[in-house]
Amino acid sequence: MPLRFSDRLDAAIQAKGNPICVGLDPRFESLPKSIADAAIREHGNTPRARAEAFLSFNKALLDALADVVPVCKPQIAFYEELGADGIRAYSETIRYAKSKGVLVISDAKRGDIGATAEAYARAHLSGAGAAFDADALTVNPYMGRDTLEPYLKTGGGIFILVKTSNPGSGDLQDLKLADGRIVREHVAQMVHELGKNHRGACGLSDVGAVVGATYPDEARALRALMPDTIFLIPGYGAQGGSAADAAAGFRADGRGAIVNNSRGIIFAYKQDKERGEAHFADAAREAALKMARELRDALNSK
Amino acid sequence: MPLRFSDRLDAAIQAKGNPICVGLDPRFESLPKSIADAAIREHGNTPRARAEAFLSFNKALLDALADVVPVCKPQIAFYEELGADGIRAYSETIRYAKSKGVLVISDAKRGDIGATAEAYARAHLSGAGAAFDADALTVNPYMGRDTLEPYLKTGGGIFILVKTSNPGSGDLQDLKLADGRIVREHVAQMVHELGKNHRGACGLSDVGAVVGATYPDEARALRALMPDTIFLIPGYGAQGGSAADAAAGFRADGRGAIVNNSRGIIFAYKQDKERGEAHFADAAREAALKMARELRDALNSK
Repeated sequence: MPLRFSDRLDAAIQAKGNPICVGLDPRFESLPKSIADAAIREHGNTPRARAEAFLSFNKALLDALADVVPVCKPQIAFYEELGADGIRAYSETIRYAKSKGVLVISDAKRGDIGATAEAYARAHLSGAGAAFDADALTVNPYMGRDTLEPYLKTGGGIFILVKTSNPGSGDLQDLKLADGRIVREHVAQMVHELGKNHRGACGLSDVGAVVGATYPDEARALRALMPDTIFLIPGYGAQGGSAADAAAGFRADGRGAIVNNSRGIIFAYKQDKERGEAHFADAAREAALKMARELRDALNSK
Repeated sequence: MPLRFSDRLDAAIQAKGNPICVGLDPRFESLPKSIADAAIREHGNTPRARAEAFLSFNKALLDALADVVPVCKPQIAFYEELGADGIRAYSETIRYAKSKGVLVISDAKRGDIGATAEAYARAHLSGAGAAFDADALTVNPYMGRDTLEPYLKTGGGIFILVKTSNPGSGDLQDLKLADGRIVREHVAQMVHELGKNHRGACGLSDVGAVVGATYPDEARALRALMPDTIFLIPGYGAQGGSAADAAAGFRADGRGAIVNNSRGIIFAYKQDKERGEAHFADAAREAALKMARELRDALNSK
């Protein structure tokens, strides 16, 4: 297996035949009742029970999705809410995904001064002995370049927030600068610069960018500024981004991006009234396969 | 006790007679040897041992500092690095601080879209039943106003990053905008706006700002834009900020700010070769009292 994150991800996308990232963002109230009930029977109505239910749910999803999706992205907030028990479930979810051959982006959006960034890098990107054995971490650029560099010494990947998918993302990211550029473009140039010394054999760099599917025009302009950057594209599905919107962030050769879908895959069973919750893992698999087809069509007609 | 964060903090500063925030940022290699050795004897050379050592260290510090400092700020990265065991120590550190009458700012610099921000808000700011019973949380503004608002529904406080203390903070925060303002000033105006509906009886708001002691000129200009905002001022001591530098962020009436010091207080014993590490808690207390005098002098001669 190639060592660099960019090469590992590019190879996984080719092997699985699609660029889907499944967001493992469980919510206890949305879990299949059988999983929630079993955990409560064993551990009472406690954070421990909710954390165990998250882990059972994720494992079943990963079993059903491992040959379909190249990469998953657990969102740490939903686990952090459960304290130490949740963090253990987060760590074990990551370990399980890796054991099934699915790459992991730890979605924690960390950002802090040098010595603190080093601690986060050790926590998320320092390999099998670390608290979280992720392949990449999402990070926030507001504090500046010196707060991003510590992550790149690990050999892991980072995805720097550039243009996020939420309605208020423009409050800062869309501000016009005195020199005519826009804040998000300035960040894009920083991402491109940082990536120059971290490029894999596949031509893509380990310094990725988060660019929301909800802003396809901005994504096209950002792609021109970051030709060798892997885009992590959130906002598909529940947040309103279509397959064509997501395709806007890809390179002309159809590479260089992954598209995240959380609820649309993991809670797909809720749209399938006929078969019910017992088939939640099958429903997730079918939703992922359907999304793969839609993305392929959108990329082909781009 | 008043309910709002701003009122609780303002009252605590008056009661303790100084605006010091002690940063509980333990590093295993810097702990007194007796504490590290005891933990390793009991739990082996494991994350559990390091986490238990952090907790023992923090409790002893809080015992020595509780009547001196109004507020503490544990940095979650150093605990997160130890996985679930570290997160348990983080949670228990917060609980212990509260039991000793010391307010807690959870220094996690979180920032994410609405539903995720709600999960972080429940994790850090929803009271005694939460994973972390903190009084306030540090947050990152890059993703926009809609990612900050969920925290304000909790009754807890937030400190929004405006001008951070690190050398590279200017990369984004100092960019000049087309309308003549600077990015950090735009964020300051957002902080001021958000705070308007969250003002306590003391006149200060629950929406605070992080403004580094290492940039006193910028701090003075930002104070003019945020007259009713509590500044959390990092960068004092080890990072290079003096008492006079820190004083630049205070209001003319000497209120409205807290000054953080981590290493300079918690590892003060390393500067005291005579008495040695057995007196680490006394050394921390004396360092805090010395810092309180220096800040008082700087504020008086401002």
